[in-house]
Amino acid sequence: MNRTDMIYSPNKVTLREVGLRDGLQMVSVLPSTDGKKAWIAGEYAAGIRHFELGSFLPKNKYPAFADIEEIISFTSNLPDAHGAALSPNLRGSEMAMASGVAEVHCVISATEAHNQANLRRSRQQTLDEIAEVFAFREQSQHQPLIGVGIAMSFGCSISGTVEPEQVLALAVQLLEMGADIISIADTVGYAGPTQVAHLTAKLRELADGKPFGVHLHDTRGMGMANAAAALGEGVRILDASLGGLGGCPAAPRASGNIVMEDLAFLCHSSGFDTGVDIEKLIEVRNILTSEMPSEKLHGAIAQAGLPVTSNNSAESMMQNS
Amino acid sequence: MNRTDMIYSPNKVTLREVGLRDGLQMVSVLPSTDGKKAWIAGEYAAGIRHFELGSFLPKNKYPAFADIEEIISFTSNLPDAHGAALSPNLRGSEMAMASGVAEVHCVISATEAHNQANLRRSRQQTLDEIAEVFAFREQSQHQPLIGVGIAMSFGCSISGTVEPEQVLALAVQLLEMGADIISIADTVGYAGPTQVAHLTAKLRELADGKPFGVHLHDTRGMGMANAAAALGEGVRILDASLGGLGGCPAAPRASGNIVMEDLAFLCHSSGFDTGVDIEKLIEVRNILTSEMPSEKLHGAIAQAGLPVTSNNSAESMMQNS
Repeated sequence: MNRTDMIYSPNKVTLREVGLRDGLQMVSVLPSTDGKKAWIAGEYAAGIRHFELGSFLPKNKYPAFADIEEIISFTSNLPDAHGAALSPNLRGSEMAMASGVAEVHCVISATEAHNQANLRRSRQQTLDEIAEVFAFREQSQHQPLIGVGIAMSFGCSISGTVEPEQVLALAVQLLEMGADIISIADTVGYAGPTQVAHLTAKLRELADGKPFGVHLHDTRGMGMANAAAALGEGVRILDASLGGLGGCPAAPRASGNIVMEDLAFLCHSSGFDTGVDIEKLIEVRNILTSEMPSEKLHGAIAQAGLPVTSNNSAESMMQNS
Repeated sequence: MNRTDMIYSPNKVTLREVGLRDGLQMVSVLPSTDGKKAWIAGEYAAGIRHFELGSFLPKNKYPAFADIEEIISFTSNLPDAHGAALSPNLRGSEMAMASGVAEVHCVISATEAHNQANLRRSRQQTLDEIAEVFAFREQSQHQPLIGVGIAMSFGCSISGTVEPEQVLALAVQLLEMGADIISIADTVGYAGPTQVAHLTAKLRELADGKPFGVHLHDTRGMGMANAAAALGEGVRILDASLGGLGGCPAAPRASGNIVMEDLAFLCHSSGFDTGVDIEKLIEVRNILTSEMPSEKLHGAIAQAGLPVTSNNSAESMMQNS
């Protein structure tokens, strides 16, 4: 088995906790470093192994990620835990590589307008920088995996409609450049399940055995339907955050990331193994509530509890169907 | 075209507003009769044509439905509007027929235990009563459609697992007895999309052209994923309530019905025509808030707004995919 398949097993569904990165972009009171560690340890105990731990951004402007090296180091010490850090540019990637993080996650937008708005450079400049990141990895000590997320893959709040061909062409280019993982993001929650099924099916063909994932937002209530559509088309890596932590800058009252514990229930209800104990996962919400008391947590399973028919952690309801 | 197909067009998706029945079972302050009329008129103006208007239950014990005849009469006067009333027993069905309502909706549970708990009689007794309802219709002046909903079709909070064969056998029996519409209900929100796809596909075969629908709850966050799965297997009748009004008696903190306006967005995003204007629908939430200020309304589209790529009322995003 190659290294990427060992980290992202093709035989189970990988749930990536992105709350420590995407979830912290809009919170009013930041969690303490110890709080972050308790959060990670709690989810780890519940079976989560993949964490996006923060962004390498200027620490004075982005205090949410000022402790990122300590958080990376903490996560590295948990057996089989896989930490990733987002890097918006070459400087960030250099810092990420120096940190010893297991995966550097680069970003590019499907649309020129959003790439400019988000990263303040053209898509071509971002592609050039990502090429430098790959080159830089060759000389790095830790040789992290490099994943690339394509923002606004399902529609753009600035440019409107995004053609699937536009996203797929970018994915091909990134795979040819050497990306280990490609992720397509519904950054502003525009997608519906038919669209998700269509694009992920095409991406699966292109990826040709390389892992690929989806980063979905529940901004318009389609999160779980979109996740189900992605699973149906062979996606085995899905981003989510505990309690759906993380809003949407483009729609301040709306929710952001899809809810991790509900997503785990979705997976189990369709017979996918995630390795996650949902009841233990729900308990970790208490850490978030105590660290960030003003943040509203989302999620239905946490309120309603598991069905009496559920076995909590594995192929719960396939025997019914 | 036969009468049922005129009411439940096979060429579009019918969204049934059940908030006036299912939604009112747990509210603390009831809406006024005028408030109900404004609610119906508002949704009608937004394109909704199918309403479940209440239950025929003893008026002294169930004040939520004390004005049901007036509400039925009001709805009958809206061109092409189709009102249904739930009837838990023969006496209720007789009252429903006398009211002139366009459809009588009977209920039975997939499990013996829930039928006893909900209707205080055996399933066989309920089947016998439903047979009498069909016989009674023959002599009735208005000859309403008769629909039957099968509660707990996806799992039961009392009996646990429900075998699909159990539900399908009941559906066959009801269709043979003369049911015009069969609806399968995820009464306590236990279903996942794989289970929904499996059962609705089988029901479609059995229904053999007769309309069939799903009544889904969002109790465990799977509502939209389940609705997408049902649509994918040919379901063209879905129940929902504006703002997701209606809790779950079995899980008091949890949400109940799936959110009508989010469901309309789901349908449009997958290219299904519903005839609904989502922005107009969202405005009707104000009536619910003013009539029932203590009720929490759910829904993502109402908070986030439609995507800039959406055309609001028809096959919005199919051009993307």
